[in-house]
Amino acid sequence: MADPSTCLPLTPDSIRRTHERIKTYIHRTPLIVSRTMNKIASSPDPRAYLADDPPGIWDDDGMDGDGRGSGNEVPRFNLYFKCENHQKIGAFKARGAFSALTHLASPPNAELRGIGIEALRKRGVVTHSSGNHAQALALAASTLGVPAWIVMPTISTKSKISGTKGHKGVTVVFSGSTAPEREAVVNEVIEERRKETGEKGPILVPPYDHVDILLGQGTAGYEAEEQLRSMKRSGKICSGAAEGGHDAADGGRGGAGEGRFDAVLTPLGGGGLLGGTATWYSHTHESSKKTLVFGCEPNFEGANDGERGLAAKPPKRIEHVKTLTVADGLRTPVGIIPWSVISDNEKVEGVFSVSEDEIKMALKLMMERVKVVIEPSSAVPVAVILFNQRFRQLVAEKQKEEGTGRPCDVGVIISGGNTTVEGLSKLFSEGWNKFDAERQTGEVGVDGSRTAEDVAG
Amino acid sequence: MADPSTCLPLTPDSIRRTHERIKTYIHRTPLIVSRTMNKIASSPDPRAYLADDPPGIWDDDGMDGDGRGSGNEVPRFNLYFKCENHQKIGAFKARGAFSALTHLASPPNAELRGIGIEALRKRGVVTHSSGNHAQALALAASTLGVPAWIVMPTISTKSKISGTKGHKGVTVVFSGSTAPEREAVVNEVIEERRKETGEKGPILVPPYDHVDILLGQGTAGYEAEEQLRSMKRSGKICSGAAEGGHDAADGGRGGAGEGRFDAVLTPLGGGGLLGGTATWYSHTHESSKKTLVFGCEPNFEGANDGERGLAAKPPKRIEHVKTLTVADGLRTPVGIIPWSVISDNEKVEGVFSVSEDEIKMALKLMMERVKVVIEPSSAVPVAVILFNQRFRQLVAEKQKEEGTGRPCDVGVIISGGNTTVEGLSKLFSEGWNKFDAERQTGEVGVDGSRTAEDVAG
Repeated sequence: MADPSTCLPLTPDSIRRTHERIKTYIHRTPLIVSRTMNKIASSPDPRAYLADDPPGIWDDDGMDGDGRGSGNEVPRFNLYFKCENHQKIGAFKARGAFSALTHLASPPNAELRGIGIEALRKRGVVTHSSGNHAQALALAASTLGVPAWIVMPTISTKSKISGTKGHKGVTVVFSGSTAPEREAVVNEVIEERRKETGEKGPILVPPYDHVDILLGQGTAGYEAEEQLRSMKRSGKICSGAAEGGHDAADGGRGGAGEGRFDAVLTPLGGGGLLGGTATWYSHTHESSKKTLVFGCEPNFEGANDGERGLAAKPPKRIEHVKTLTVADGLRTPVGIIPWSVISDNEKVEGVFSVSEDEIKMALKLMMERVKVVIEPSSAVPVAVILFNQRFRQLVAEKQKEEGTGRPCDVGVIISGGNTTVEGLSKLFSEGWNKFDAERQTGEVGVDGSRTAEDVAG
Repeated sequence: MADPSTCLPLTPDSIRRTHERIKTYIHRTPLIVSRTMNKIASSPDPRAYLADDPPGIWDDDGMDGDGRGSGNEVPRFNLYFKCENHQKIGAFKARGAFSALTHLASPPNAELRGIGIEALRKRGVVTHSSGNHAQALALAASTLGVPAWIVMPTISTKSKISGTKGHKGVTVVFSGSTAPEREAVVNEVIEERRKETGEKGPILVPPYDHVDILLGQGTAGYEAEEQLRSMKRSGKICSGAAEGGHDAADGGRGGAGEGRFDAVLTPLGGGGLLGGTATWYSHTHESSKKTLVFGCEPNFEGANDGERGLAAKPPKRIEHVKTLTVADGLRTPVGIIPWSVISDNEKVEGVFSVSEDEIKMALKLMMERVKVVIEPSSAVPVAVILFNQRFRQLVAEKQKEEGTGRPCDVGVIISGGNTTVEGLSKLFSEGWNKFDAERQTGEVGVDGSRTAEDVAG
């Protein structure tokens, strides 16, 4: 990875500059809206839409008025999904990989002091990953003509291995599956190459714990805001519609409050995406309409390490997590650099978590009602919006304060879509009958949390 | 249904006028492109992408040149998916229902002689359907304030029943599941209402066998062409991008050959969608670049009645089909009025069919690679493009004739997305291991057909 001293600072401006650097390599993914999901999210009981006999969607049955004036405060949402499932390699990770490699490729005497493309091509890059980061780095390296060594656990699925080694100049090296085993193989690769070439050996590009990675992932949030502004200005907001054009001109218009999200939610695993997103939206802090950024985690087997770490007094990063949550992209603990952003309550407003069944319910609704294929990790923020009573109450309260009856404009970063029909089949053919029972007991506790599990995991 | 003598003729201009009439009621669904699917479709063996060890997608590995100059002629595609899975009620059927009802609602003394909205509200409408047409008519009727009686077989799924009766003013009446049983109940409803009100009783709106329905369904093809033109003009064609705005201005530009599809494919069940689409594209016949329209069917248990009917000498509509193909929207035989269009070889260039496994393979690729949820019926045209050797050979030959090396611009009408995660689970957890075997035997016969089954079903 690039010497940290040569990285841009973790600021909104650095994200804008990173976007400028990587935009020709990545897709400007669509920002889509769904009238159906707005209706479901803005209903008093979104779970009702999962019943065998769900309420209708299309009639103007007065639901728009739900909760206003009544005793129950029901939050109201206009949701905007930033579809990184349509990103190259099917996930946002392409952004971070291109950010890291284009920094390294910068000439040493340029402002962004890298090692230069020639030196980079001599040395190459290395990482260990069994998931989207492996494919993202393989893509970025082969695109720039840089050799890459990707250490993958032998137990990785065949399709992921071939999706990684299918790129030109990429070598997959196998390892055991624990972190020490993987790191040992990375060191072996570096040592071997060093001996072979007499050079310094391949440069490690970690999946999330580096400033360049955060700056890259943050560009998804940057684009989403730009697209919202362009949609609001053109009036092109309709159900099923998408804004997918390249570089819609901004012209610097859209003053405070115009085309700003009220809130943006991202999944939280290692923290690259949340850290980058929160860094971008800190630019709204001088404005009258601040965009609040939230992280979203599964709470199964303690996967909500971010939420638990923030709840500790004093807040403290949790370093080890062992969970088999269905949201397999979110099984890692938050990294050190992401934690520095996430634990800054000026940047991240809060972290919320949801149960496995809530994730599956949200995934089912996104697939059946919005007709998009997303990976379980991407359903986590949707589940927070639909089912986390503390989050919903917070939104309802903000709306009551504002008093205009305007629904909240909420951005949701859909992190990726790398799943298989077989994987989905497995998910929905087992243990898939809990929500009706839960529905009966989903009471809101005195502090607004549904159950102790929400916090303690 | 409206008196046939008051219907517009089955011409492109009538489709334009129908679109004008219904456009405020329906969604202008996005037209999306996928670089990944273009690459898969343009490869010599699309099945390879279903193997455990599939070829890469993102490297520029020279695949764009595949088949050119070599002995094997490989067709090359730029695919455009018209996403009616994002239409209201999740399928194109909303178009036909609004077309039928807005015609009926026209005043008797207007050009389009209906019975007037007041008379229509007094009489109401009736149909029998267990699927998308039931919900489409329920939506259109409730939107226009017209009472509707929908006869549904008692065995219909609960979600479809509630999706139908959830609309205001809609009454679901149950029946047996055979056609005579359903028709008997329709007649009972009409008789009963007639006695109750002293009026003529509710008007029958059939699912496909009526000119108004064809004209409505054809508007999907009309919009797709308009969107292609707008995309080509703006240069806004990128992977993952979508054109979803309302009424992009055309300005009458785009002369012959500019922004025209080389071919458009639709699923073929009752024939409303194919008949309407072919009617619209007959407007290209005076142009130097004619858009060829193809129908696509499953061949399981003789579901390819359209293909078989056209192959008969002389061609003859097949009136009865009994099949349990996974493409459940395509189990019905072609209707009389649709047949009049489909059997006109000036309008429909051909009908091709695919096996159950080919449909599942196409569905899997659309979900995993394009990240969209579609119903199995909508995967049928995709399967024809990827796996029907006769179709692929035909495209390759046209390309050889043209000699420019330009890929074909092919529109695919994605008819709907009404499926459930449980339904998908069932589909992909059983008998899902055939494609590797088939891959070995997928030889092309002397006449270009893969096996006798393709034609005989």
